Amino acid sequence: MTKDLRPIIWDDDKKELILIDQRKLPNKLEYFICKTYEDVAYAIKDMVVRGAPAIGVSAAYGLALAEINGDDIYKAYEVLKNTRPTAVNLFWALDRCLTAYKEGKSILDEAKKIHEEDIETCKKIGMIGEKLIEDGDTILTHCNAGALATSAYGTALSVIRFAFYNGKKIRVIADETRPRLQGAKLTAFELNYEGIPVKVITDNTAGFLMQKGEIDKIIVGADRILADGTVYNKIGTYSLAVLAKYHRIPFYVAAPLSTFDLRSSEEDVIIEERDEKEVAYIDGVRIVPEGVGCYNYAFDKTPPDLITAIITEKGIVKPNRDEILKLFR
Amino acid sequence: MTKDLRPIIWDDDKKELILIDQRKLPNKLEYFICKTYEDVAYAIKDMVVRGAPAIGVSAAYGLALAEINGDDIYKAYEVLKNTRPTAVNLFWALDRCLTAYKEGKSILDEAKKIHEEDIETCKKIGMIGEKLIEDGDTILTHCNAGALATSAYGTALSVIRFAFYNGKKIRVIADETRPRLQGAKLTAFELNYEGIPVKVITDNTAGFLMQKGEIDKIIVGADRILADGTVYNKIGTYSLAVLAKYHRIPFYVAAPLSTFDLRSSEEDVIIEERDEKEVAYIDGVRIVPEGVGCYNYAFDKTPPDLITAIITEKGIVKPNRDEILKLFR
Repeated sequence: MTKDLRPIIWDDDKKELILIDQRKLPNKLEYFICKTYEDVAYAIKDMVVRGAPAIGVSAAYGLALAEINGDDIYKAYEVLKNTRPTAVNLFWALDRCLTAYKEGKSILDEAKKIHEEDIETCKKIGMIGEKLIEDGDTILTHCNAGALATSAYGTALSVIRFAFYNGKKIRVIADETRPRLQGAKLTAFELNYEGIPVKVITDNTAGFLMQKGEIDKIIVGADRILADGTVYNKIGTYSLAVLAKYHRIPFYVAAPLSTFDLRSSEEDVIIEERDEKEVAYIDGVRIVPEGVGCYNYAFDKTPPDLITAIITEKGIVKPNRDEILKLFR
Repeated sequence: MTKDLRPIIWDDDKKELILIDQRKLPNKLEYFICKTYEDVAYAIKDMVVRGAPAIGVSAAYGLALAEINGDDIYKAYEVLKNTRPTAVNLFWALDRCLTAYKEGKSILDEAKKIHEEDIETCKKIGMIGEKLIEDGDTILTHCNAGALATSAYGTALSVIRFAFYNGKKIRVIADETRPRLQGAKLTAFELNYEGIPVKVITDNTAGFLMQKGEIDKIIVGADRILADGTVYNKIGTYSLAVLAKYHRIPFYVAAPLSTFDLRSSEEDVIIEERDEKEVAYIDGVRIVPEGVGCYNYAFDKTPPDLITAIITEKGIVKPNRDEILKLFR
């Protein structure tokens, strides 16, 4: 069904984690081999691998590599935990592995379980969410919440994939998603790879297409969802949600339960600020004059009143505390 | 007062039009010499010179070059007119020159007059508009409506300049403005050149900064304004206007009377679609996978109900037919 675009592969013979090097896509399909937890930490930090679920799975294997190499597990846990601050799946996966370790279980087994579960979870999100998609829909998405952001299928793109697999005639508009261009480079790559019709636009164009009536639905992923339905996701998501509200276009967030953070409130969430060079340079070429600074927030915050529904592996819920807490019962 | 950043210079000895080659900024300050009207047509089409008022002035000199070189004026008029479809200053300036020609006057004299008037007009826009700016304001702007988009000072950036000249402590946030990055490359360049504090953001970041309460006012330029106050401007302007409304942030448009098109209705306005390579490639590097197409609308349409006021050389008006028509009495 899928052409098996898997960004994370565990080599059980060599005890290596093999990642698609997402910094090189779409022009080159190269792999990045991790033999140590430090390799994994670097891969997460530098965005060799990105996307909340994929970061979680990779970090779990990172801790497994620490176990295999006889490293200090608590130190490895801290290093991996401090790679990126916003996506909560990272902490969730590391905590699961550490708990297993404390119980005398194999971290590698736990990592493999997290990995397998993520594939199943993403598949379920797609199968559940695709019911929201109608034949003929044009769907706007932001950044990459696809196979490349997870273990397979994706979250937002899993919904799109399963609508397509079920024969619905859909087309996708991908925001290019500056600064890292995951929409242009990754979403367009993986949809085109499977033959799902996709066009790329600059982030500036989304509002205009909504005004022209060309967007039927918007689906994005998430890096963290609070108990009240507040969604943290790639910078630009909030603007899209405001535009969706203004144009009365349904705005869906697709995410696994591992992306929910029921303990934190808004004050606890750190929105990562990355190196301003990501804005000032594009593929090595400086676009901002020397001496001028940039802001580079990697994520933004979308309040629940702008979200139509959240699609999870346990069902579709409204973004409020009651419905969200029910998912965890 | 200004460090004289002039994108358009007429060399009266050599009878040449000297343009700052804006495709090369901010990394190189190079000039592009036009000896024929065809050179000017190319310069407008390829965006050596851009910005509605600057296009108008350049086209006027283009027609003057046709006169000087003994070319067919009507043919030159048609060629220049068909360089870009959206900014109305182009047609306005060419029509003024053609009328002068028909009256037996020198086209070059008319072009020089248009050029000088544009400098005065932009200065007035700045002096009138700066009254809207308060000490301590952080002002968001989009694309480049600066000296580089006009003969001097700019429109939106003239307002910012004169607030700065008058000692108001302001800072500017410049949307990078994909696909051509005029915000990062030109606005940041010219503000930094004069020592006006400026930071660059990705277009995705504007909404988040508004949500954080960090934007006090938004000022943009315009490529065409209809009698009812509908504004055509760089793609992304409409999204900003929706976001401004949602956050109750004043949204100003600064433009000379030559940008108003009182005769046309929305159906008459062509929103230019440029080569999709402008989206698919950044500075020669392909960012979109081979085989995937892009949409590249250069402009969008902002309805009057999203605009707080329009700043012109004749005063500040509300975006409605009554107030706009009064400007022309």
